[in-house]
Amino acid sequence: MRDFSTDHRWLSINTATVRRQHGQDWGLLDILDACAARGIRAVSPWRDQVAAAGLQATAARLKQHGIELSGYCRGGMFTHAGAASRQAVRDDNRRALDEACTLGAPCLVLVVGGLPGALQGHALHKDIGAARAQVHEGIALLLEDARRVSMPLAIEPLHPMYAADRACVNTLEQALDLCDELDLAPAGPAGVSGPAALGVAVDVYHVWWDPKLQAQIERAGHRRLLAFHVCDWLVPTRDLLNDRGMMGDGVIDIPRVRGWVEAAGFAGYSEVEIFSAENWWKREGGEVLATCIERHRCAV
Amino acid sequence: MRDFSTDHRWLSINTATVRRQHGQDWGLLDILDACAARGIRAVSPWRDQVAAAGLQATAARLKQHGIELSGYCRGGMFTHAGAASRQAVRDDNRRALDEACTLGAPCLVLVVGGLPGALQGHALHKDIGAARAQVHEGIALLLEDARRVSMPLAIEPLHPMYAADRACVNTLEQALDLCDELDLAPAGPAGVSGPAALGVAVDVYHVWWDPKLQAQIERAGHRRLLAFHVCDWLVPTRDLLNDRGMMGDGVIDIPRVRGWVEAAGFAGYSEVEIFSAENWWKREGGEVLATCIERHRCAV
Repeated sequence: MRDFSTDHRWLSINTATVRRQHGQDWGLLDILDACAARGIRAVSPWRDQVAAAGLQATAARLKQHGIELSGYCRGGMFTHAGAASRQAVRDDNRRALDEACTLGAPCLVLVVGGLPGALQGHALHKDIGAARAQVHEGIALLLEDARRVSMPLAIEPLHPMYAADRACVNTLEQALDLCDELDLAPAGPAGVSGPAALGVAVDVYHVWWDPKLQAQIERAGHRRLLAFHVCDWLVPTRDLLNDRGMMGDGVIDIPRVRGWVEAAGFAGYSEVEIFSAENWWKREGGEVLATCIERHRCAV
Repeated sequence: MRDFSTDHRWLSINTATVRRQHGQDWGLLDILDACAARGIRAVSPWRDQVAAAGLQATAARLKQHGIELSGYCRGGMFTHAGAASRQAVRDDNRRALDEACTLGAPCLVLVVGGLPGALQGHALHKDIGAARAQVHEGIALLLEDARRVSMPLAIEPLHPMYAADRACVNTLEQALDLCDELDLAPAGPAGVSGPAALGVAVDVYHVWWDPKLQAQIERAGHRRLLAFHVCDWLVPTRDLLNDRGMMGDGVIDIPRVRGWVEAAGFAGYSEVEIFSAENWWKREGGEVLATCIERHRCAV
């Protein structure tokens, strides 16, 4: 297991972590400057942040600073109400792939969607099995596009408390079953050991509770472990979405999980992704980044 | 699958559903009277409610009304900080067993506990594997006591969002693995087909999201399916504990899950358990019971 205690070369900042400081959006280009000033070598930006800053401007700023991506957030949302929205989803995911390529992302992270309409407060039906079938179909189609542009897709299983409205893939086992079903030749050409075309993003917040976590991380192996996200589970948790904790402030044994992913061969960035309406989003962005660096060294 | 549309003979009320009407506790004996007046044949009371009303007084009132129990809430909380609290837990669970016997409960429901101290806001450690080992040991010990008094134990897997503070058994598969490990002869003497000594309580709120739910219900079989609880998952859910919905108001396909448990041989009560600080607990108790009856007929 890598020693993170003496530097932060393997720290990445998911830019949602510092997107809304003091109730105001912190622009992506400014975030990149702030990361560069602190020696942070990687980020994972969100599409709306990139759109606001401009795709080419973002790519140029990344290049200027020598910052790379640990992932691109996000594609997915495959569950839909019918043929028209199905096509819109596919088109949007193709644009996400193009953006990921332009930015040099190592993978496009997929949040697969829940029951159609639920995120807007009115689920169109209650058939989570049907939603999962749409996810299966959606990933199969997107995988064709992704292979053409050589962009790995990382399915992110979300915590079961998001099954209704955000993602009906809720365990690492379920995500890997999808990988097995849709990516029949994950080993690639003989001798090739790069990332699989279809893999997973392991976020400790979503999977820490899973009694099968270690076994499923081993099952994934290094070719399917495309991203590793960290934050912490606070006790008590006061909001289902925006009360995630800074590493070390909650109950997740993050080093243990990192040990498992590294034992499986993962050697990439540890990406900090914290949604925190009542705490970290209310602080000065530089303070948040400094805390991420400190905690990366001692609590990851 | 049984037809619930024409009566409510298979409705049970978990008495937490009506415990705090208008911000004031509704006494258990009054709840029993109100249930009897509406032809509700079964309840599942909580220990603190029984203690407040008196154990013998509760037993007498149940007998007077001919109301039976669908379960007794609850034993468990096996995770502990050391030998002294370990013994206290065992003693308390023995008292729960005795109470369950006095009340004629069909099973003692077990909520197994999370990380020690987490429910009080300060987890003593982050080792959920160690907590799970304590649960294994705690159930093994309690099962000896439970066998002596012929009281089945029903492990209730709780939603993964409660893994830290309430229960580190979070899937039906995990609960059934415990049953396999601890109850080696679930079939009992030849020809006997009553409830197993150790089984599960299936609450749709906790398990609805699980992609393996149907398969695990089949695996459980009728001897291990000791209780079936219903409420609904609201979109959005505003509180992790006390924002559960009335059946029909959320996104759980309850009839589908009931179909699965009945196909596996379950033929007991459908127990309504709703924690709802901002809605149902603010209404008049009789209205809540009437709504439970109505929804039992049309949404369960």
